[in-house]
Amino acid sequence: MYFGVDIGGTTVKIGAFSDGKLLEKWAIEVDYNNLDAMLDLITNSIKKKSQVVDGIGVGCPGFIKNGRVESSPNIPCLVNVNLVEEIQKRIDTRVGILNDANAAALGEAKYCGLSNCLFITLGTGVGGGLVVNGKVLEGAHGAFMEIGHLHNDDVYNFTCGCGHKGCVETLSSALGMINIAKSLKGKYETKLQEGFSVKDIFDLAKELDPLATACVDIFVNYLGKALANACILVDPGVIILGGGISNAGNYLLDKVCVAFKKYALDVIKDTRIILAALGNDAGIYGDYYLVKETGENE
Amino acid sequence: MYFGVDIGGTTVKIGAFSDGKLLEKWAIEVDYNNLDAMLDLITNSIKKKSQVVDGIGVGCPGFIKNGRVESSPNIPCLVNVNLVEEIQKRIDTRVGILNDANAAALGEAKYCGLSNCLFITLGTGVGGGLVVNGKVLEGAHGAFMEIGHLHNDDVYNFTCGCGHKGCVETLSSALGMINIAKSLKGKYETKLQEGFSVKDIFDLAKELDPLATACVDIFVNYLGKALANACILVDPGVIILGGGISNAGNYLLDKVCVAFKKYALDVIKDTRIILAALGNDAGIYGDYYLVKETGENE
Repeated sequence: MYFGVDIGGTTVKIGAFSDGKLLEKWAIEVDYNNLDAMLDLITNSIKKKSQVVDGIGVGCPGFIKNGRVESSPNIPCLVNVNLVEEIQKRIDTRVGILNDANAAALGEAKYCGLSNCLFITLGTGVGGGLVVNGKVLEGAHGAFMEIGHLHNDDVYNFTCGCGHKGCVETLSSALGMINIAKSLKGKYETKLQEGFSVKDIFDLAKELDPLATACVDIFVNYLGKALANACILVDPGVIILGGGISNAGNYLLDKVCVAFKKYALDVIKDTRIILAALGNDAGIYGDYYLVKETGENE
Repeated sequence: MYFGVDIGGTTVKIGAFSDGKLLEKWAIEVDYNNLDAMLDLITNSIKKKSQVVDGIGVGCPGFIKNGRVESSPNIPCLVNVNLVEEIQKRIDTRVGILNDANAAALGEAKYCGLSNCLFITLGTGVGGGLVVNGKVLEGAHGAFMEIGHLHNDDVYNFTCGCGHKGCVETLSSALGMINIAKSLKGKYETKLQEGFSVKDIFDLAKELDPLATACVDIFVNYLGKALANACILVDPGVIILGGGISNAGNYLLDKVCVAFKKYALDVIKDTRIILAALGNDAGIYGDYYLVKETGENE
């Protein structure tokens, strides 16, 4: 049996796979300040499910290169850790590790039968992964396709968590949507209540609420611009939109396609843009594919 | 003997290689409106040099995918042509074909012993190529790393040849430098004469000419921004600057490094930026490496 482990913002999600199928999935709560305790909990949880562990794939946020996590925002215990070795100390099996957005990219690509694609995750921030010839690219610093920090805007110029201004995720993420809504507040009529969510904005925009519509238009315009810029650099042929915000579905997709075509160079205008298929399971699927295929190539 | 063929803006450059060394190079003039005549001239020129042709690598401008040139700006006869087949009709040997900037990228990478790098050519326009694990990436439309058309500027907003505004090459190319100089004319004192070249601007900037210095500062600032944006997407670890403008040497390089660091995300700030080693021969070297290695992998 293979296991995919997705170390997420608040919980660790684990999937058990056999013969290419997800048999079972569950989540465990761990202490992100204690590496040994966290890894003991994860590996014990796996051992309980199966005595035979053919491989473990792990996805986690941060900059990862050759099995080592250089740093991981929001997970203090994951700094300069060789996670492959640490897990193998506990379970003697094949272990692979990927950045979480890269894992989701690999998961979606393989699940959809695509050898080449750009995966974009629209959540609290914006992440991405590029799959070329069936492999996800890591880059020299594990920073391949950190599209959330592509400079994309000189008009709103919101400050990003990275310290720079105008990054993609200052507008086209959940945090970005809040930035936009705050900056437009009072300029449009709206039924939007205090304490609104991004889902509220999309729901109201579908009902033509003026403020919500203006927010979505800005969000989508800059997302289309970012995708066109990414495509002129990495020409993926297909873009898959995932992450929580992609739950806005075809309403979002149709608008993104229009914005993309506005900014795209002629030669890449026919790049297909589709919605992700695996939802929150993309990560564990990608973790599984990573370690499964590494094994097959041995 | 292997041959590298670089179909350039005005002439076709050919190099003869053996045992990894460039033995001889020469240029021929061809008619870019007549495919058959052009290919006859190229292949006859090769046959005259050697009876044994182990392989021919070809680089040409345009969008190329799987041996087929979809379109090539400025070379009217290269539209929807399977150049591999056309050449093999004339010489029965292994033939490889790449976009010219991709060929130069492969040439510089292999010559410098780099398995991973981003090559940028600064000439009339701006082109690029990404080498990952020793292979240059083509993309779904042969448009990988068309960095000249990355949207990069909302301030000067010059119109690009592609029809969009604010592309990288509207500022950070030879054409861009002319755009900048024209827009600043009369605002600074200068010794720059009518009919100036980009080399004149760099030469005068080194002497602190006010207009020339202002031009170089803008050119370099936007180039640094473009490189930082490219690196946050493809994280190459090393950037090689080539093309005619890179002849400005360390004066240019030092300024580009400063501008790059200003825009780069922390994790990629230590990306090395170096000057190209092969000058105008990068293309024929890349064409050679392409076909040489394809042969070795068979």
